[in-house]
Amino acid sequence: MKLAELAKHIDAAIESGADCAIDSVATLSEASERDVSFLSDKRYVADLANTKAAAVIVAEDFDAGEVTLPLLRVANVEHAVANVLRLFAPEPDLPAVGVHPSAVVASSAKLGANAAVGANVNIGEGVVVGDGTALRAGCVIGRDVVIGSNCVIHANVSIRQGCVLGDNIHIHDNTVIGADGFGYNLIDGKHCKITHIGIVKIENDVEIGANCCIDRAKFGQTLIGAGTKIDNLVQIAHNVQIGKNCILVAQAGIAGSSVLGNFVILAGQVGLGDHVNIGDGVQVGAQAGIHRDIAAGEKVVGSPALPVKTFFRQIKHISNLSEMARELKEIRSKIDTLEAKK
Amino acid sequence: MKLAELAKHIDAAIESGADCAIDSVATLSEASERDVSFLSDKRYVADLANTKAAAVIVAEDFDAGEVTLPLLRVANVEHAVANVLRLFAPEPDLPAVGVHPSAVVASSAKLGANAAVGANVNIGEGVVVGDGTALRAGCVIGRDVVIGSNCVIHANVSIRQGCVLGDNIHIHDNTVIGADGFGYNLIDGKHCKITHIGIVKIENDVEIGANCCIDRAKFGQTLIGAGTKIDNLVQIAHNVQIGKNCILVAQAGIAGSSVLGNFVILAGQVGLGDHVNIGDGVQVGAQAGIHRDIAAGEKVVGSPALPVKTFFRQIKHISNLSEMARELKEIRSKIDTLEAKK
Amino acid sequence: MKLAELAKHIDAAIESGADCAIDSVATLSEASERDVSFLSDKRYVADLANTKAAAVIVAEDFDAGEVTLPLLRVANVEHAVANVLRLFAPEPDLPAVGVHPSAVVASSAKLGANAAVGANVNIGEGVVVGDGTALRAGCVIGRDVVIGSNCVIHANVSIRQGCVLGDNIHIHDNTVIGADGFGYNLIDGKHCKITHIGIVKIENDVEIGANCCIDRAKFGQTLIGAGTKIDNLVQIAHNVQIGKNCILVAQAGIAGSSVLGNFVILAGQVGLGDHVNIGDGVQVGAQAGIHRDIAAGEKVVGSPALPVKTFFRQIKHISNLSEMARELKEIRSKIDTLEAKK
Repeated sequence: MKLAELAKHIDAAIESGADCAIDSVATLSEASERDVSFLSDKRYVADLANTKAAAVIVAEDFDAGEVTLPLLRVANVEHAVANVLRLFAPEPDLPAVGVHPSAVVASSAKLGANAAVGANVNIGEGVVVGDGTALRAGCVIGRDVVIGSNCVIHANVSIRQGCVLGDNIHIHDNTVIGADGFGYNLIDGKHCKITHIGIVKIENDVEIGANCCIDRAKFGQTLIGAGTKIDNLVQIAHNVQIGKNCILVAQAGIAGSSVLGNFVILAGQVGLGDHVNIGDGVQVGAQAGIHRDIAAGEKVVGSPALPVKTFFRQIKHISNLSEMARELKEIRSKIDTLEAKK
Repeated sequence: MKLAELAKHIDAAIESGADCAIDSVATLSEASERDVSFLSDKRYVADLANTKAAAVIVAEDFDAGEVTLPLLRVANVEHAVANVLRLFAPEPDLPAVGVHPSAVVASSAKLGANAAVGANVNIGEGVVVGDGTALRAGCVIGRDVVIGSNCVIHANVSIRQGCVLGDNIHIHDNTVIGADGFGYNLIDGKHCKITHIGIVKIENDVEIGANCCIDRAKFGQTLIGAGTKIDNLVQIAHNVQIGKNCILVAQAGIAGSSVLGNFVILAGQVGLGDHVNIGDGVQVGAQAGIHRDIAAGEKVVGSPALPVKTFFRQIKHISNLSEMARELKEIRSKIDTLEAKK
Repeated sequence: MKLAELAKHIDAAIESGADCAIDSVATLSEASERDVSFLSDKRYVADLANTKAAAVIVAEDFDAGEVTLPLLRVANVEHAVANVLRLFAPEPDLPAVGVHPSAVVASSAKLGANAAVGANVNIGEGVVVGDGTALRAGCVIGRDVVIGSNCVIHANVSIRQGCVLGDNIHIHDNTVIGADGFGYNLIDGKHCKITHIGIVKIENDVEIGANCCIDRAKFGQTLIGAGTKIDNLVQIAHNVQIGKNCILVAQAGIAGSSVLGNFVILAGQVGLGDHVNIGDGVQVGAQAGIHRDIAAGEKVVGSPALPVKTFFRQIKHISNLSEMARELKEIRSKIDTLEAKK
């Protein structure tokens, strides 16, 4: 692709290099002669001097200084890079439209127009799959599951009985939707399993990473709100209610019946106890542990979690404990001296 | 189902509403006109005023006050709810008895009466599957594995060579039993793999969640004791010995050769080091990290873990450090004044 | 196997018991009459008195004292045990060489000599599989993936489009290589997916546990260096660069674009933030959380992480806070007394 054509795609102004050939995109330090690169973070400005990139995407108001490379000036560098990535993306690796001969599809299942069912997929009785949805190899779709349109369900995903998915949902490989919630009654010294008759409901535009677990509800539904994005290895227990457009980073875990508002961010390895309410826009730092409600807009971290400022003040005090102990000893000695003089 | 019939099933006394039709169960706030609901936690007593439920399960001694809804009085509300859930549960989504034509079963494998082998299951040489056990689609059962009776092995589970499972065991989707333990010898600057010739043994009545990993022993066996229940995404390393009726909550991890007694509870995201002994009935709080033996009956939390009371006393002291620093400064100033006066 | 033969295999000197029959290996306390055992840790020396083992592997300079059991004296007990384990290991449970009739292999895929493709494996267009590599049942190998020679890919592993693996690689069951990285741009109140066009590259002699996730790069590659060993349930985000011979213990997680040197050790449940640099030989203690660069050779622990000595000094100071508070109160009272006397 010529640089001029690329510039047009990302709505960029260029002053030179219109005829450069561009094959892909790379960071300034890794780019080769046929790559376009970008500067979205000032920390990397020094890399401009040595980059081999054919051209660089920069902010509209970037001061070129001594840079002689062709520059693509755009309103938002990160959005432009995302557009470039789409341009250079290989064709997605999805099964062909129709049902692969090795797939096992129950006779009562209904597949939408242009649905694509891959090798060794197993679709149970009563399942409904929407138009344009692709199920990659090895998926197991349990009885009466409903999947909307234009979803991509990756390899070896298991969706259990009765769960309901909206449109434009991506679920990555080996994730499990709708396994039984973890609940027992202790009766006569034995943990007796509580039957879980609820489902998981996933709204439109949700993405769920690989090797995640979202458990079915005891009754009613475990809910993942529209537009929410979930990273890999995340655990969501029975009856959790997650709002819209939340971000749950890898290895986070949410215990039973907790409720998240909209635009909540849980960083990596965060743990939420059961029955807690997390308000809209709350941001929880990595590895935090939460056992109480958090009001909308708060930023917390630590285990048990504290407001971010409080947490870092405590960290500072703790790092000062040696000095505090030393000072206490000194004061004690002075007092002893003063008392002795009496 | 009529309310009178439901009441009989859960051994409840009713005073009214015997002819109400009940379809399902829901919380007080979510129930509709054909749901039975329940009050097991006093925090929700206010919801009684506005619930649409047809009837409510309450404790025998509940003071009805102004409540006019039909009440089902029972000895134990939680147990009654569990019984109601069983009543309303849909038929489980298991493969038909027999071997699905797409399954690949080695000629030397032995399947018990009424065993059910789902689509695309792969069963190796020498495998034994007990009566009434169901293997859902995509399971891979390695050579010489023995599975007892009345087990349910969910989709895409892998059980590796030689592992031994008892009766009435549930394993949820995509869990891996018997992968190699993580052990290497560093020889001449390379990590050389230690061959793991042991197995995993799982006793009766164990339930294991989705996406768990239980590694095979270096030699001998990694053991999961009878009646133990394991949540999702739990890691159990080689040669770990877990007692009976333990509860391991999601994302907990246990390093090699550690030993748990009976009725141990590990909350979510707990980490246990290697070669530690955890006594009977120990309870470990969420995200705790343990690197030493814990005596029977102790309750610990924190990383490194402390007795619960000690941990919370420390938390309180830490939260008071600003005040302590201020006070130390004040005292210092007073001492300076006193000294100056000399 | 006769003890004399075993001794020869592990290069051991024996003084007696040459004709003992040995079937397997076990710890001193668990060994039976046909097991060889070993003493690699002095803590277990007392077990020598009561072991039923036929013979015991010990260090060359072990003082036999009153031990009358046949002893196998070796230069390195742990290496000798590893050799014994290899001797007694059952034949590995791998598919037969060739392609199982139930496997679905694209016509453009190229399989090396002696490659073994198990039941229900799915291999996409353009895939290359090296000589002697085994793919166990249910694996899904995406389009244009390249796998080297003598690899073992266990059951239900998914390797996504375009990823490149070297030789002698082991990947355990249900692991996912090359799922999309977790990246979005927030545009007009929606999280817009960033297309990830990079790959995962895995160098020779790497082992990866079960249920791990290694995400593809936004562009370029996520890299796992030669000889690195990864335990179960580990998360490695997009564009992470891991050096050679690292050890990543179970449930560790590494956020995007972080860089690890060679011989780095991350203990269990460690979390690394994004864009951090970890130098050669760094050791990170269990559950640590890292948000800054760590220089080569450092040992850190805690969340946020500190040098090990600093961490334990802080722990000690914190455990002393009750005493410190008491002392502060006492001093305060003495000062009040001194002031009153003025």
